Amino acid sequence: MPKLILVRHGQSQWNLENRFTGWWDVDLTGKGIEEAKAAGDLLAEKDVLPTVAFTSYQTRAIKTLHHALDRCNRLWIPETKDWRLNERHYGGLTGLDKQETRDKHGDEQVHIWRRSFDVPPPEMESGGKYDLSVDPRYAGIPVPTSESLKLTIERVLPYFQSDILPMISAGETVIISAHGNSLRALVKHLSGISDDDITGLEIPTGQPIIYEFDDAMKPAERYYLKDS
Amino acid sequence: MPKLILVRHGQSQWNLENRFTGWWDVDLTGKGIEEAKAAGDLLAEKDVLPTVAFTSYQTRAIKTLHHALDRCNRLWIPETKDWRLNERHYGGLTGLDKQETRDKHGDEQVHIWRRSFDVPPPEMESGGKYDLSVDPRYAGIPVPTSESLKLTIERVLPYFQSDILPMISAGETVIISAHGNSLRALVKHLSGISDDDITGLEIPTGQPIIYEFDDAMKPAERYYLKDS
Repeated sequence: MPKLILVRHGQSQWNLENRFTGWWDVDLTGKGIEEAKAAGDLLAEKDVLPTVAFTSYQTRAIKTLHHALDRCNRLWIPETKDWRLNERHYGGLTGLDKQETRDKHGDEQVHIWRRSFDVPPPEMESGGKYDLSVDPRYAGIPVPTSESLKLTIERVLPYFQSDILPMISAGETVIISAHGNSLRALVKHLSGISDDDITGLEIPTGQPIIYEFDDAMKPAERYYLKDS
Repeated sequence: MPKLILVRHGQSQWNLENRFTGWWDVDLTGKGIEEAKAAGDLLAEKDVLPTVAFTSYQTRAIKTLHHALDRCNRLWIPETKDWRLNERHYGGLTGLDKQETRDKHGDEQVHIWRRSFDVPPPEMESGGKYDLSVDPRYAGIPVPTSESLKLTIERVLPYFQSDILPMISAGETVIISAHGNSLRALVKHLSGISDDDITGLEIPTGQPIIYEFDDAMKPAERYYLKDS
């Protein structure tokens, strides 16, 4: 049965500091590197070996992929990076830690932004410290100023359908190394999770999730590789 | 002016042990990793930033690329791996160190294999310890049993012409992370070096070589980035 492997990047410096990261390019911590290596060790141990890789434009997901592929001796497989697998863009919240966000916007509003399906955070200010529209990596790309989970899904899913699903259909074992919310977008679609429930679903870091597809290319099973 | 960056992978374990490596997949040493990072630091310092990357199917070249790109903040650029950028295949010499090779084949014969342009070493034995025709990474690929430098050029150059040169013509700054002999193939072609002279040309590890192209896409200059 064709398989899809989803891996959320290991711990980043801002995961550790509890800051909204979004599209800001924060590196893995030492723990994050170890999580990525452990993911690769598990792929090797369970003999679930990717043949094609996808990741975002963000260092923490790219490095997670590279460490994992290295450990399962698959660094040589083709790898495609696309901004549409990037994390949800947290707009004006980017760089704030939880306490700063509460102080600035109030507990209730923060809860709404974190947990609502379709309410985007305030927009990123143009020309501010975290404005990525000037980053050469995003030249020619419609950099969002803020995204709800709904908006995130609206760019992740078409890319999955057009570029990734055909690979799985062709028999490739695809690995996607990405982010909490870009992976939520995929899990929501593949497992048919409601708008209300998806915002509460946590994707653990560095823990490979496997989807197996049936002959009609419908997802038949979802499980953590460690439990298989 | 469009630029091409060539980088030979940093020191591998078998470089260190003075063994014929060829297509065998040997990892970088700690020193090799440092060489790769230094190459990336130099690219950043000189502001020669690649926009598209090519490498071989071999871990030491792939990792050299990743370490270098990480250091110049370019991990996100598109990366293509191709077996045609692999090292020269040393056939039956693979795995032997210099002394073992001399003991087995004699000094004179070894000198001929190392330095002749068109005499391939003895063929790799099928089913032996270093036979890569069963490696999944080479499924569907015509794995050589032995290559002279001439045979190496005959697979490197068509790939350069068809897949890499058009990128440079389109204005991309291309980086190629590869091997002593696949890079010799390119330098021979781009700098018009004779069959006799190319076998004596040493490409230093981890040292970016820059080609600048003129309007007619002829290589106008070649230099070490460190000297610029």
